[in-house]
Amino acid sequence: MNSLKGNCIIAQSGGPTAVINSSIAGAIHECIKHSQIKGIYGAINGILGVLNENLVDLRKEDAVQIDRLRKTPSSALGSCRHKLKEEDLYKILDVFKRYNIRYFFCAGGNDSMDTANKVSKLAQRKGYELKVMGIPKTVDNDLPVTDHCPGYGSVARWLAISVRDAGLDTEAIYTSDTVKIIETMGRNAGWITASTVMAKERESDAPNLIYLPERPFDNAQFLQDVDRVYKKLGHVVITVCEGLKNKEGEYITASKRGVDTDGFGHKQLGGVGDYLCDLIAANLRIKARVDKPGTIQRVSSLCASKTDLKEAYLVGRVAVRKAVSGLTDMMVTLVRSDTKEYRCFTGLTPLENIANKEKKVPDNFINGEGNFVTEEFIDYVKPLIGGTLPEYARLKKCMVPKSS
Amino acid sequence: MNSLKGNCIIAQSGGPTAVINSSIAGAIHECIKHSQIKGIYGAINGILGVLNENLVDLRKEDAVQIDRLRKTPSSALGSCRHKLKEEDLYKILDVFKRYNIRYFFCAGGNDSMDTANKVSKLAQRKGYELKVMGIPKTVDNDLPVTDHCPGYGSVARWLAISVRDAGLDTEAIYTSDTVKIIETMGRNAGWITASTVMAKERESDAPNLIYLPERPFDNAQFLQDVDRVYKKLGHVVITVCEGLKNKEGEYITASKRGVDTDGFGHKQLGGVGDYLCDLIAANLRIKARVDKPGTIQRVSSLCASKTDLKEAYLVGRVAVRKAVSGLTDMMVTLVRSDTKEYRCFTGLTPLENIANKEKKVPDNFINGEGNFVTEEFIDYVKPLIGGTLPEYARLKKCMVPKSS
Repeated sequence: MNSLKGNCIIAQSGGPTAVINSSIAGAIHECIKHSQIKGIYGAINGILGVLNENLVDLRKEDAVQIDRLRKTPSSALGSCRHKLKEEDLYKILDVFKRYNIRYFFCAGGNDSMDTANKVSKLAQRKGYELKVMGIPKTVDNDLPVTDHCPGYGSVARWLAISVRDAGLDTEAIYTSDTVKIIETMGRNAGWITASTVMAKERESDAPNLIYLPERPFDNAQFLQDVDRVYKKLGHVVITVCEGLKNKEGEYITASKRGVDTDGFGHKQLGGVGDYLCDLIAANLRIKARVDKPGTIQRVSSLCASKTDLKEAYLVGRVAVRKAVSGLTDMMVTLVRSDTKEYRCFTGLTPLENIANKEKKVPDNFINGEGNFVTEEFIDYVKPLIGGTLPEYARLKKCMVPKSS
Repeated sequence: MNSLKGNCIIAQSGGPTAVINSSIAGAIHECIKHSQIKGIYGAINGILGVLNENLVDLRKEDAVQIDRLRKTPSSALGSCRHKLKEEDLYKILDVFKRYNIRYFFCAGGNDSMDTANKVSKLAQRKGYELKVMGIPKTVDNDLPVTDHCPGYGSVARWLAISVRDAGLDTEAIYTSDTVKIIETMGRNAGWITASTVMAKERESDAPNLIYLPERPFDNAQFLQDVDRVYKKLGHVVITVCEGLKNKEGEYITASKRGVDTDGFGHKQLGGVGDYLCDLIAANLRIKARVDKPGTIQRVSSLCASKTDLKEAYLVGRVAVRKAVSGLTDMMVTLVRSDTKEYRCFTGLTPLENIANKEKKVPDNFINGEGNFVTEEFIDYVKPLIGGTLPEYARLKKCMVPKSS
């Protein structure tokens, strides 16, 4: 244990998830156990809350509400996408000093870890003692070092169930709705789209085709794939990542609206599904429709993965424990054991290993044709969705002999 | 009891739902109890299965699978959208005769009831004794006479939870994702969109604005509404029906693709959300994004309403019971009692009262401004979603006093 005493700030950053509040609950529960931590403050809307001194006193919350955070989706403290300017860093340090903030816990993705790292480095240069710990969070699952990211297992479970249901829908009404395209989130990494494979139990089940941004998208190849499945099954269910790119590395569809850029200059994506429907209609003359669940997929409480909820809570606790023990400038990671049965531990990695870096879906998780995932990927993702899917009826459908 | 003995066909028609299989389970369970019914046949892909003599023997299915249908989404026997030609009717009657079909149970919406009615009337003209009963089904909730339609309560529950979660998402990250538009299903009736109101617990909760096709959509009024909410809350969550129409009664956005027309000549809709995002970006200069859950909303098993599942099962049973008792050419309806506590019974109405008719959301369910629903509508829809929503944490957020 180190002897640094003072207040702490907990902040949530980036896109909300089904489990980030579970991490916050874990952090608060752990903070309460350590006498070094006096005030437990929550930053309203992430780093903006620090900059604007919008801080709430989490010790004043009812214990039952803090417990309930473990099953409450979205970011209860509010979040933001805000790229820090140089002068913001000085302002943050000033706020930290004035509020005697000695511990800073930031739950977020690669942008947020960059922010946390910069704040910490400035504090060190200025001789202000501060412990900064990152709590991993992103549905995109694109943080390096950690085996996976809290938030991902839940979006994967949501999609597994939803794609299975939507697939059964197409299977039932394929005579008029022949092709279904389900557009998932994912900017540059296809982890979310890949996870839709968990909907599939049998060879003919949805999804029939999966396209990730890790492979350049080729219209002609896509049409061939769709046509082949259509001729075999009479219907096709396709999952695609909103961030698909062509051979030139350009997004197939990015918003042309000037307002659609976030604080980090990222363009709002989306529209790939409609683009592909047009392509199919024009070339194969069959009807396709798009489901684009959007933010519903990332934040749905309906089927948060139990494994994900548990791990999210754990990384929140561990972040506090490690900071109190004297460590700083690290993000908690999830480390999968080598055992056959799924077991997961926590580790630590320097924030600079995470800051602004992206982990894409590796080659061995994508099939040779670039239109599906491999068994290795299924082994990877299976334990993360937190248990089996609900069991549905499977009818034998014995044909009544034709009458003459 | 009537003495008509023979085989029966059960068919599912139109868009799949979360509970139509529950109706089929109810019908099968009831058929088994009546000695007049010999073969229990399922038509594969609705009336197409009759036309093509694709019939399966449901007596050969395992009891456990039939039971499991009660919680299996989509249409297990397959469905279709097929507008009958005159000669099809004769062909169907011929199939009925050859397979000694004396009972025909058709689960579907207004198109399907028209089909069932026409088949029955032809049989009567030709002196072939046949009992035809309709089983109501449609997420659209647009069948006349019946208080509500099996399938609707489940899509309403799914949307209540999903819009609430997506609303919390916007509330958390409104500094970059300021406006969210959730595009729901609904061709000419706004029942589904209206049900999203169940997401709302507090005044500021999502949805803030609700637009139904029952009121002509006006761009200028819409922009004023959005601007007002934005100025008040800093963010806006809007639910809109895919079938919104302008003052001229034209769909705001209908597909221009030639292939996007179903068997009844209905154009594929969708795209209203994107249209409105463009409108907001161009006029208010704020960023909006669209969630369009599409078929996922109608068929999701994640939160099928218990009330809906129970009633769907009931109408399946009652249809068989009534046919066996000698009635024909009727659809089972749901009748809500006058009691304060929700109670629901079944009734019957002639198929011709349902065939090709649509029940729109009545005026007293829509507010004067045409941008929200009324308390009367909330009273109507509340019992249908089958219980309260999961309870989420509500933090007090006591501000830490500003340091000087």
